[in-house]
This record gives sequence, C-alpha cells and structure tokens, in this order.
Amino acid sequence: MTESHLITLDDYLGSAGVGPRRIIDAAAALFRRRGFIPVSMIEVAQAVGLSKPGLYHHWPNKEALLQVIARLSGELLLRQIDDVRKNFDDPEQRMRAYVRTRLEIVAHHQDLFTVTWQERALLSSASFGELSRMAERYRQEIRQLIDEAKQAGFIRKDADTHLLMLALDGMTGWAYFWYRESGDLAPDQIGDAFWNMLAHGVVQPAKA
Amino acid sequence: MTESHLITLDDYLGSAGVGPRRIIDAAAALFRRRGFIPVSMIEVAQAVGLSKPGLYHHWPNKEALLQVIARLSGELLLRQIDDVRKNFDDPEQRMRAYVRTRLEIVAHHQDLFTVTWQERALLSSASFGELSRMAERYRQEIRQLIDEAKQAGFIRKDADTHLLMLALDGMTGWAYFWYRESGDLAPDQIGDAFWNMLAHGVVQPAKA
Repeated sequence: MTESHLITLDDYLGSAGVGPRRIIDAAAALFRRRGFIPVSMIEVAQAVGLSKPGLYHHWPNKEALLQVIARLSGELLLRQIDDVRKNFDDPEQRMRAYVRTRLEIVAHHQDLFTVTWQERALLSSASFGELSRMAERYRQEIRQLIDEAKQAGFIRKDADTHLLMLALDGMTGWAYFWYRESGDLAPDQIGDAFWNMLAHGVVQPAKA
Repeated sequence: MTESHLITLDDYLGSAGVGPRRIIDAAAALFRRRGFIPVSMIEVAQAVGLSKPGLYHHWPNKEALLQVIARLSGELLLRQIDDVRKNFDDPEQRMRAYVRTRLEIVAHHQDLFTVTWQERALLSSASFGELSRMAERYRQEIRQLIDEAKQAGFIRKDADTHLLMLALDGMTGWAYFWYRESGDLAPDQIGDAFWNMLAHGVVQPAKA
C-alpha cells in the first residue's frame, strides 16, 4: 500500500483528476449521493477504472477514505481563513472575504463537505479527535475575526460574537445542501448578497 | 402489526414518553448518535424494553421508523409556519416569530431533525417523494412570508427573496448540529438575536 491517505492539501489541490485525488473525489461523489456505508470499495474501484486489489494497493480500507475526506475539508477551511487574513488587511474587507470565500469553498468542494457533515455521526463515533480540534480551531478563528472587527468599530459591539459566528457558519455552510452549479448566481455573488444582508440589515431603515 | 407508522403529528405531540412516540423518540436518539444504518432493530427494542417480536408487532422494519421521523419533521415545520400565520398578523411580528419558533422547534425536536437531515442521502435514494414535496412547500411558504413583508414595506425591496429564505433557513437549521440544552440561551432567545442581527445589520450604522 502506498501512502495515499497522507496526501497533503497542496497535493490534493494541485492534482485534479489524477493521483490520489482522483480516487478521493470519486469516493466522495459516491458517498455524498448514497451515504458512506452503502457504497462498497468495489464501486469506488469501478468508478476510477481500477480492480479491487488495485484500489487496495492505494487505500487500506474505506474508513481511510472517509478520514481523508474529513481531514481535507477541515484543512480547506483553515486554509481559507489564513488566506483571508493574508490577503486582506481591514476588518470590513476581511468579513466580506470570509463569507464570499466560505461560499466558494463549500460550493467548489461540495462532495467533500457534504460527506464530512453528513457522516458526522460516524466520524464522531470513531477516533477522530483531530477533526473536532480542527473544527473548534476554525470556529475560534472566526470569532477572532469578528472580535477584531468589533474592536475596529466596524461591527456593532452589541452583536454577540459567538452567535454571529454561528449565524455566519450556518447561512453559508447550509449551502452544501442547496448549492447547484446550474443556478443563476456564482458562489461569490451569493456570499456577497449574504454579507450585504447581514451587514446592513434587511429591514427598511425607517422601520428599523 | 399495528399501524404505528400512520401516527399523526397531533398524536405524536400529545404523547411524550408513551405509545408509538416512545419508540420513535428512542429510535431517533439512537440514529442521531450513531447513524441510521449501524443501529439494529434489536437495539431499538432494548432501548424501550421490548422484545424484538414486540417491536416488530408495532413496526414492520427500520425504514418505516426513518420514514416516520422524516415525515414528522416535515409536518412540524409546516405546522410551525401555519401557526406563525395564525398567531401573528403583521409582517414584522411574523418574520420574528418565524425565526424564533424555527429555532425552538429544531431545538426541541433535535433528534428528529438531525436524523432527517443527516440521512438525506438514504431518504432521497428511496421513494420518499412526499418528503421533498413537503420541504419544497415549506420553502415556498417562507418566500411567501418574505414577499408579504416586502409588499408591506417592512423588508427592503432590494433583498433577494430566495437568498433571504436560504440565509434564514441555514442560520437557524444549522442549530440541529450545535444547539445544546446546557447552553446559556434558550432557543427563542437565540432566534431573537439572529433576527435582530439580520433585520438591523451587524455593521455600525455610521460605517454602513
């Protein structure tokens, strides 16, 4: 067995359609549509034109595929928040960029995120402590972003940091379920619209 | 076999801890924690102190339990939106009541909603057309509520109705994952805070 399950996020992002990514993406598409448990390793092998021994040469078992899918999802989000910090300086730009890029990343890696979130019960029942630590670090990073925007006087002090993080997390994360590439708007446009609504309010100012 | 799977929403709501509801709730708690497929009917039977034949006397199979859980979840949401219309007249009160009661209902029936949303892949692969029709009707009802609030001049005309529905749906629905009864705030308080943020915006007016 080669060390496919050790694939780094950079290797994954740089290898669409080839190498370990080809198998991970095929597995994620199958798991997303039918659920993790009902899909067999033979079906994953067939989806990428490998024999069953050929697939097992790369992957020890189906759980290793699930674990990599969940790890890459977590790393994608942490990378996203690092990029937002690196590419934007002021709190206003950062908040908008966070919402836009979260929509983009969930939409572009919809199979990975759907599997990760859909299979939470399985992932938490196994020994996946690393994953929940990544998720908690991500939520902490978002709270930090919000707090910095409050300190800069951009976000209202009376908006609860934790609840605002949960609101943003949910309105954007739920896209794993409803986003369709065939829709009218690109993910960054949806993210922009979401941020505009939450930033400035949807109620007519006169009535607010 | 008795007709437990035909249980109505009113019977369900009026029978905590007894009758068909006792079995449905025990099954939902198990499915939520460990996923639908890994849980056996024997485990469901044990959770309510029945023998396996005793359980099968009430339920033909495990899929019937899942179908009832998903149907009740859908009916709870349609009932919720009916109640909002019945109990509140003006668009402002209705929007706030919708967000508050959605948080309440997801929190109070967290096992049912978690199972329904977690097992979407299984539910959609089987012949559950009724469920997706209920979900679409719910989304249509929310869009209707938003449109009425726009026509009344309460919600800004430039807020996209469909995207606002998705934003509300996601920020409140995601609570199935993070809500904990041990938290500081009650569900209606969280719903209130969410609506206040989205209604009036989280950005300082001077900067908006």
